[in-house]
Amino acid sequence: MLNLQIHSEHFTNPLYLESGRILEPYDIVYETYGELNEARDNVIVICHALTGSHHAAGTYEGDNKPGWWDGLIGQGKAVDTDRFFVICTNVIGSCFGSTGPMSLRYPYNDPYRYKFPVITILDMVKAQRILFDRLGIHQVHAVIGGSMGGMQALAFGVFFPNFAKKIIAMATTAATQPWAIAFNKVAQEAILKDPEFKNGYYDPEVIRENGLSGMAIGRMAGHISFLSHQSMAKKFGREYKRTDGLFELFGKFQVESYLEYNGYNFTKWFDPLSYLYITKAINIYDLSRGFDSIEEALNKINAELYLVGFEKDILFLPSEMESIHTAMLAMGKTNSDYLEVVSDYGHDAFLVEIDKIENYVREAL
Amino acid sequence: MLNLQIHSEHFTNPLYLESGRILEPYDIVYETYGELNEARDNVIVICHALTGSHHAAGTYEGDNKPGWWDGLIGQGKAVDTDRFFVICTNVIGSCFGSTGPMSLRYPYNDPYRYKFPVITILDMVKAQRILFDRLGIHQVHAVIGGSMGGMQALAFGVFFPNFAKKIIAMATTAATQPWAIAFNKVAQEAILKDPEFKNGYYDPEVIRENGLSGMAIGRMAGHISFLSHQSMAKKFGREYKRTDGLFELFGKFQVESYLEYNGYNFTKWFDPLSYLYITKAINIYDLSRGFDSIEEALNKINAELYLVGFEKDILFLPSEMESIHTAMLAMGKTNSDYLEVVSDYGHDAFLVEIDKIENYVREAL
Repeated sequence: MLNLQIHSEHFTNPLYLESGRILEPYDIVYETYGELNEARDNVIVICHALTGSHHAAGTYEGDNKPGWWDGLIGQGKAVDTDRFFVICTNVIGSCFGSTGPMSLRYPYNDPYRYKFPVITILDMVKAQRILFDRLGIHQVHAVIGGSMGGMQALAFGVFFPNFAKKIIAMATTAATQPWAIAFNKVAQEAILKDPEFKNGYYDPEVIRENGLSGMAIGRMAGHISFLSHQSMAKKFGREYKRTDGLFELFGKFQVESYLEYNGYNFTKWFDPLSYLYITKAINIYDLSRGFDSIEEALNKINAELYLVGFEKDILFLPSEMESIHTAMLAMGKTNSDYLEVVSDYGHDAFLVEIDKIENYVREAL
Repeated sequence: MLNLQIHSEHFTNPLYLESGRILEPYDIVYETYGELNEARDNVIVICHALTGSHHAAGTYEGDNKPGWWDGLIGQGKAVDTDRFFVICTNVIGSCFGSTGPMSLRYPYNDPYRYKFPVITILDMVKAQRILFDRLGIHQVHAVIGGSMGGMQALAFGVFFPNFAKKIIAMATTAATQPWAIAFNKVAQEAILKDPEFKNGYYDPEVIRENGLSGMAIGRMAGHISFLSHQSMAKKFGREYKRTDGLFELFGKFQVESYLEYNGYNFTKWFDPLSYLYITKAINIYDLSRGFDSIEEALNKINAELYLVGFEKDILFLPSEMESIHTAMLAMGKTNSDYLEVVSDYGHDAFLVEIDKIENYVREAL
């Protein structure tokens, strides 16, 4: 059975951040599926992407939207909740319950806003590690994630080499490249320049109500980076929303309606400051930081490493995944495997092409 | 010799547009290089891209910025001005002297703004054709263009089959695909939602002075589409502007500074309404309009057709160029040739990889 449970933990000990700053106190919200066995050796950690949350599987009562990786996680699925105890935490810096820039800053009664410290992928991973320790989980069967979730999975492997037996990282990279940073830059700039953002001093209720066009525009750019030339052509073609609108300046192609809808809808459920902080964390993600090279970092990985790249992913190229595998092999490490999935779906493939990854994940586990 | 000359022609006869509307009166600004021979058979037409202009070659007195295709056009160059009389016109809808949305609307003394009609690639081509007729040029040796310039070159071939002996179209497509439309959408939305755009009733002087962040953000997205993952990685890597800024929320990577500089600088020299109208023209560009199929349209081309795609171009895929060639061959037309240029430069390759295209262009001519 799925046995979906939502939990929250409060931490009063400071979290020492990579920047030298601290986060204190802080909360972490997480979901669990399945049951922890007596030996405590059936744990699988799922890491979410930029705008994801701890709600990875199942459907809340009264809701009809399943978790973001529901196709992969559940009873009899690749991440089988009859067999595994699955945990997915909301990363610090996000806006779904874990401490982020709009959380109240102790001991004041105001949100942090820009007083929130810059956090990194490693900070997100450390915070999870501390949570798991509190839960009495000191080793896990696997850590799995895609995109920013894959960055976390790799960071677990490098910085906590004895924590996970298996690491499955999809559609991600060893260090964020300027191409991905450029997409984030468009979104950040659009948010910052929106007068309704009020230089960070917006009222979140007003934004949820009225939207925030800057964040919508940024999300539109994001959607481009998640898709591919081919998947857009297949999905939208040159379909026009109204056939008579072709020669109207504001007549719309279907692809434009899609971007508008998803862009503006996004501002109803995501926080702009969280967007700035998490994209910052993605931009400065670099596994080699603190090492002499990427190879030296990767050399720390003891876990079985499963890397999945997607053919048409333009955000994190399959070659970025493959180069991790190549580096592992070149160091004589035999604990690495690489799969390139043939797919037109671009970066989103890790979320939508479940049928093409489930067997790989099942066998890896 | 280059013999750079700038001209302007005024037209009082209406231009009948594809939309059914008319443009009347209108001006076309153009540059010429070289000299028209007595037989009037040495003319080459150069077509510019979205934000290009009639200034394709040479350098104005007191200026140090050469025309946008100066590497290709000039004395002894691939488009040899000792041999050819080269004409490049500023397209209608643009903002460098030809009639566009900020031109005064006769008989009033106000700019058109939104009263400017939607124009198409075919309209741009028709206006050029009318100009050439006035100049006594009824046939040309070649039409050459890249990106939106390539769209015009192809439209010359389809709609005026006896006009050009040779068509050279680079980094373009037979019909704009949703991926390219999506990038334009981000830019359009960013312009429209900028309060300083004032719903189209901005003061152009104020924008040139203060910039327009919405257009800057749109241009940043544009720059992503012009480059490639590989060219950005090569050009910027993960270089940071200030090494101590890594953990500052607004610390910047080099790629971010590049986008910011070029984005904001762009708003000093391009008009936002022209940007809306020209991207609209690109979005609705489809050679098959008025035909039963793309093939039927391409079948009209009598000119020798030279198609150039660039390996890492993500805006107009090389496969889009190749499919035109394939369609020509499938119809038994032997007047088509296709070259795929190996380059990391993405879409911008047609502007910067002159050494990789000059021999092809020279031989084609």
